[in-house]
Amino acid sequence: MRVPLPGLPAKVTIYEVGPRDGLQNEKAVVPVDVKSEFVTRLADAGLRTIETTSFVHPGWVPQLADAEDLLDVLPRSPDLRYSVLVPNEKGLDRALANGVTEIAIFGSATETFARRNLNRTVDESIAMFAPVVERARAEGIWVRAYVSMVCGDPWEGDVPIERVVSVASRMMDLGCSQLSLGDTIGVGTPGHVTALIEALGAAGIGPDRLAVHFHDTYGQALANTLAALRAGVTVVDASAGGLGGCPFAKSATGNLPTEDLVWMLSGLGVDTGVDLDKLVATSRWMASHLGRPSPSRVVQALSPATET
Amino acid sequence: MRVPLPGLPAKVTIYEVGPRDGLQNEKAVVPVDVKSEFVTRLADAGLRTIETTSFVHPGWVPQLADAEDLLDVLPRSPDLRYSVLVPNEKGLDRALANGVTEIAIFGSATETFARRNLNRTVDESIAMFAPVVERARAEGIWVRAYVSMVCGDPWEGDVPIERVVSVASRMMDLGCSQLSLGDTIGVGTPGHVTALIEALGAAGIGPDRLAVHFHDTYGQALANTLAALRAGVTVVDASAGGLGGCPFAKSATGNLPTEDLVWMLSGLGVDTGVDLDKLVATSRWMASHLGRPSPSRVVQALSPATET
Repeated sequence: MRVPLPGLPAKVTIYEVGPRDGLQNEKAVVPVDVKSEFVTRLADAGLRTIETTSFVHPGWVPQLADAEDLLDVLPRSPDLRYSVLVPNEKGLDRALANGVTEIAIFGSATETFARRNLNRTVDESIAMFAPVVERARAEGIWVRAYVSMVCGDPWEGDVPIERVVSVASRMMDLGCSQLSLGDTIGVGTPGHVTALIEALGAAGIGPDRLAVHFHDTYGQALANTLAALRAGVTVVDASAGGLGGCPFAKSATGNLPTEDLVWMLSGLGVDTGVDLDKLVATSRWMASHLGRPSPSRVVQALSPATET
Repeated sequence: MRVPLPGLPAKVTIYEVGPRDGLQNEKAVVPVDVKSEFVTRLADAGLRTIETTSFVHPGWVPQLADAEDLLDVLPRSPDLRYSVLVPNEKGLDRALANGVTEIAIFGSATETFARRNLNRTVDESIAMFAPVVERARAEGIWVRAYVSMVCGDPWEGDVPIERVVSVASRMMDLGCSQLSLGDTIGVGTPGHVTALIEALGAAGIGPDRLAVHFHDTYGQALANTLAALRAGVTVVDASAGGLGGCPFAKSATGNLPTEDLVWMLSGLGVDTGVDLDKLVATSRWMASHLGRPSPSRVVQALSPATET
């Protein structure tokens, strides 16, 4: 039953991260033809913004070392937006050589994660991103900025809101068009999320330039999404089937499953353009490739009993 | 980090249903000494309202056939409230004979589920409950009314809000003190939940007399809880460790895990009185008895990697 809730947007853009954020966290390297079919099916299910791969060094993330090959074979359409992760100028060179029109850089709100993920301090990482964004913009490329660890950090604990605002402001000041707030370890709760969005707004980064990126490690992803929508955010990152972490491993850092998000938004009468049945069929197909069931509650609930 | 969200209650009462709603859905019959330790540990973790068992016919629910034996051995304390499910006068007789002071009756918003769960029409089931509530109240017993299938029904589909209001009003008119709204198949979304609570309020059943009972079948339980709290509800049903359904079975009708609820409320600065570490330890202990991991995200996240 569709019953709206006052104060929510009429339409939400789902920024699908399964092919990149999901598959880069799988142990197995998925063949490029399977990846291509995955993206194609996601697009056919109505997803219009899909992060397809990453131009990080292949030694860092061997799962996505086939970025060029994948981009070569993906179907193109004027209403389909493919974004690609780019950490540095070398990655940008590869993106430019492959006709990429949207990129995402990825910073950290904490020093420890900046060091572990980028082998740099926060200052050094922003210095690394600066020429990337400048050159990308000169080429007419749209740039998203991720900030990780916006609620908590496994080594540093709670992350102060002012710290996130400071790092986010510096990244947006480089010339990025959108900021994705990543609760990378999933510890945040709805009040924290709301306060963070309000603090960013007070610092000049309004909800029209924000996206939220929640992990369901502590089961909070959808409640936090609801809070973010109420605070004016209209772009939500999600991963088809919850790809990106096994729910029965300590490192369970699964992304918000796109299906669970679509179920909620559909019930709320919020338009996403996504065909849930096609999406669930896609995630079941991918789960069969990966050899384990999807952690998405909706995928489980809508799958035949014999399969799960 | 604790960050309040305006409009939420300062304190929430968690109505713990694991020993009854959880264990009655387990294939294995849990020994009475394990049940007793379970309730004792839940109380030690700070839960003050615990539904312990059921006086339905032992043939219906063999898992809870030991109700008398359990009540015999449970520790008592003036600040601990144990409630017991009672379907009919025979069940009430057993409850009275065992010194029970709080009972719950359980009706259905739909005819199909009333027939399947109680072998009666909705009218017949309310006629069955009437003398139970009347006699219970005459004995000074507190009575809760459950209404199942308040959002959807597996056989009938969407359940109209006016239908729920009608059944709920008739059950409350019998003299019940609290109404627990059960989204038994977990299909509801936050706008639907809010509209239902508002419609009940308009019919004279305010949020101060309501509890919400969500199942996480479609991942919506915590988002729906957040909506219910915003609508003024302060009593939330939950099941320790998410007992009551296996997440990898088609019949996955797991209750909202108490731990996931406590994580959210704690982050929101809402007082529950629950010690999360003790609760997680209790659910891990029970999971080891049942031989499978808890479906609670928080229990998984806080458990050692070797265990999950």
